[in-house]
Amino acid sequence: MAKVLTSRADDYNQWYQDLVTKADLADHSAVRGCMVIKPHGYAIWEKMQQALDKMFKDTGHVNAYFPLFIPKSFLSKEAKHVDGFAQECAVVTHHRLKTIGDTPETRQVVVDEKAKLDEELIVRPTSETIIWNTYRDWIKSHRDLPLLINQWANVVRWEMRTRLFLRTAEFLWQEGHTAHATKQEAIEETERMLDVYAEFAENFMAIPVIKGIKTPNERFAGAEETYCIEAMMQDGKALQAGTSHFLGQNFAKAFEVKFANSENKLEYVWATSWGVSTRLMGALIMSHSDDAGLVIPPKLAPIQVVIVPIFRSEEELKAITDAANKLMTDLRAKNITVKFDNNDKDRPGFKFAQHELKGVPVRLGIGPKDLANGSVEMARRDLMTKEVVPMEGLAQRIADTLDDIQSNMYKKALERREAMTHYVNTWAEFEAALDKGGFVMAHWDGTAETEARIKEQTKATIRCIPLNNKQEDGQCILTGKPSKERVVFARAY
Amino acid sequence: MAKVLTSRADDYNQWYQDLVTKADLADHSAVRGCMVIKPHGYAIWEKMQQALDKMFKDTGHVNAYFPLFIPKSFLSKEAKHVDGFAQECAVVTHHRLKTIGDTPETRQVVVDEKAKLDEELIVRPTSETIIWNTYRDWIKSHRDLPLLINQWANVVRWEMRTRLFLRTAEFLWQEGHTAHATKQEAIEETERMLDVYAEFAENFMAIPVIKGIKTPNERFAGAEETYCIEAMMQDGKALQAGTSHFLGQNFAKAFEVKFANSENKLEYVWATSWGVSTRLMGALIMSHSDDAGLVIPPKLAPIQVVIVPIFRSEEELKAITDAANKLMTDLRAKNITVKFDNNDKDRPGFKFAQHELKGVPVRLGIGPKDLANGSVEMARRDLMTKEVVPMEGLAQRIADTLDDIQSNMYKKALERREAMTHYVNTWAEFEAALDKGGFVMAHWDGTAETEARIKEQTKATIRCIPLNNKQEDGQCILTGKPSKERVVFARAY
Repeated sequence: MAKVLTSRADDYNQWYQDLVTKADLADHSAVRGCMVIKPHGYAIWEKMQQALDKMFKDTGHVNAYFPLFIPKSFLSKEAKHVDGFAQECAVVTHHRLKTIGDTPETRQVVVDEKAKLDEELIVRPTSETIIWNTYRDWIKSHRDLPLLINQWANVVRWEMRTRLFLRTAEFLWQEGHTAHATKQEAIEETERMLDVYAEFAENFMAIPVIKGIKTPNERFAGAEETYCIEAMMQDGKALQAGTSHFLGQNFAKAFEVKFANSENKLEYVWATSWGVSTRLMGALIMSHSDDAGLVIPPKLAPIQVVIVPIFRSEEELKAITDAANKLMTDLRAKNITVKFDNNDKDRPGFKFAQHELKGVPVRLGIGPKDLANGSVEMARRDLMTKEVVPMEGLAQRIADTLDDIQSNMYKKALERREAMTHYVNTWAEFEAALDKGGFVMAHWDGTAETEARIKEQTKATIRCIPLNNKQEDGQCILTGKPSKERVVFARAY
Repeated sequence: MAKVLTSRADDYNQWYQDLVTKADLADHSAVRGCMVIKPHGYAIWEKMQQALDKMFKDTGHVNAYFPLFIPKSFLSKEAKHVDGFAQECAVVTHHRLKTIGDTPETRQVVVDEKAKLDEELIVRPTSETIIWNTYRDWIKSHRDLPLLINQWANVVRWEMRTRLFLRTAEFLWQEGHTAHATKQEAIEETERMLDVYAEFAENFMAIPVIKGIKTPNERFAGAEETYCIEAMMQDGKALQAGTSHFLGQNFAKAFEVKFANSENKLEYVWATSWGVSTRLMGALIMSHSDDAGLVIPPKLAPIQVVIVPIFRSEEELKAITDAANKLMTDLRAKNITVKFDNNDKDRPGFKFAQHELKGVPVRLGIGPKDLANGSVEMARRDLMTKEVVPMEGLAQRIADTLDDIQSNMYKKALERREAMTHYVNTWAEFEAALDKGGFVMAHWDGTAETEARIKEQTKATIRCIPLNNKQEDGQCILTGKPSKERVVFARAY
């Protein structure tokens, strides 16, 4: 079988690009920076959405939908916010096209200059401003609080350098926007949603994450504090996998959102926002996949088990089909999604490679000999192992195997992260550790200036200051100034 | 209790507007023509999405996602298509803002003229062009066909007169885009999806619909044939509830999408597209609701049963809570969604009115007397009736009642449609029937000119030519020319 993908060792970036397009996950579109999410990629995203949506609802949130467009004046109301996003805004200026030219040859479609908007509209890069403008009408009294709303939506940030899933001009995401009566409640919400993201990353995506807070430099534009989860990819680079922002009263003040407290006095509302995006697809791919293709944790796999019949005659296929149907009934009773790949155009070897490429966690091969022996061949995608197992009790064995794959994938990712986490105390050690790749735990003097100098010299950023961080005396790796804790440095996606 | 809504008899349009905003369904936003879909409205839309998505997947479709933006040149490739949408296009011309002014007072955010796009981008009004441009890369051989893809997305059509859910500049929808090897298969797909829509409207929304085809005048811009389902609202106006288009080879030709057939000869691909939108929310509201608020068919109700405790002491509440918890367990075992409305701030009468406004199908009131008698008071939203029923066997009784509400709502809507469908043979009868409201079944000479004259004189349009229409000789109501069948005329939303 010809190799479909560039290997990771040969060219990690090309491997990623090959995998994303060939495993039917996504593709570049004709529109600069915008991707097409292909069916297999979208099916995984749907599984992510379902799991997250349930977690949001279980924590008391409801969904709603706000406009795609934001008047330029709204975006401008919070000064830091607009500074953060102004460089990346897609701007709608007109609302009509017209056709000029009378013949098919001269015919041309142009923007109708008579249909210029009075005020430009920005395609939302994030929705704080349009939402807080709406909340002004919805929040009058403490009885209207907390307001716990989430939105699933597309957003646009005009990025100059794009990469499928990781950085695209348009992406899909969810954005939670909550309003609270007190600062304390808003901070609790910010932390609660960070916990939800961490739980999702670890339990569903099988990716260990560090929970922490961002330095002021890396804060969301308009936030008082940005919490994040940071994951490590196979190449040792960091990837920010979700953020949860405590917004203080910044947006309430910008949009004059006040509530009457229980003593009937008006106060500004406290806010949070939090989001994860299709970027998580990139994290999923780069955490687990290998040179044969995608490896998907069973909880997010659109198809968890594929059955490939191996046959030479209609009669053989018929007998295998009967056995497969029985097995599929048992698997579906256990809520396991299974596909019987009985198309007669492709050979089994081709099918095996396809399912490996697409990351189906468990593959079963059934031939006439297996039927005679009451067994099947079971292959695990995560370990690329095969074993012959009895047909009897197979559904339960598969259920157990799927659980084992899920926990094995997490364990493997965690072990890799631990092996690639370096504790350093000097600048020389710091640079050497960065070159090995991974997270570098080092002391920092706490200033934005030092952070910027380190970034300039090494391309490494402070990924986060871990929550519940161990306090210890040390010296900043660059300036030697005193420090009370280590922070997480890494080069990042 | 003060009346919350304008009554339908007083002002039907104001009733609709009141209901949509007060039942927490949607609201106008600060962006011209764009709505905010509020949590209760969005929850109903999610139920619709889930049901439709399952039906699409059961008929072999997969989901994907294509870019929000369409290059102007793409939209222009199919001449009729661009003519149909040019008037309503939101156009992105720039990709950056900048801040001018050095002080907070003079500070201003403006469009950066240096960041003008080489080619304008249109915010998708529909996605045929960007999708068929992508399909050119995906379709090479007959083995790649059929390609059966659906997308859930937002679209923008710059409408001048907007109305919540019914006509908004941005709306949410799904759009299916399929590619086939033969004309016959594409027509079968077009009809299959029309059947899916009709089944959804009737079985889930409890709205009877007429399946038919549009006249050339009313065809989708770029289609060879547009199929539709037409529903009748309470005021007798028609509402187009879904369309399915046979696109022929128009888009394949515009975007050069060819496949190698089984003899290895290149042929253009055949296409369909089909969609329903948040407009269905308008249809749902106007089909069933009344002066007390929303009436939702149980299959689409986010909460199917609400339990309101009636108590004066903590002790009474505790006893009712125990009974309610037991009942909720039984209901949830039957997949019935139930809410226990035990907040102690609002009085039962207020809660009753709120749940009526929001359309909860079944409401239970439980007080100390009910507990003593082993009974509860059960109220049906569709009939606004109440009865005292035994606690024993209650979960099953509620399940049966929900089924009965679902079928009763359909029956009522069907009876109304039948009562408001008029068969007329003369112009005088035609005008009189239109003034009574409803569908008017009349002969038409088959010309676009007559259709246009009728519309001009009466504001009535031909909603559709029903599928499997009865053939009978008659004379056009306007011109007296011979006709072979009646078509459906109505004034429409």
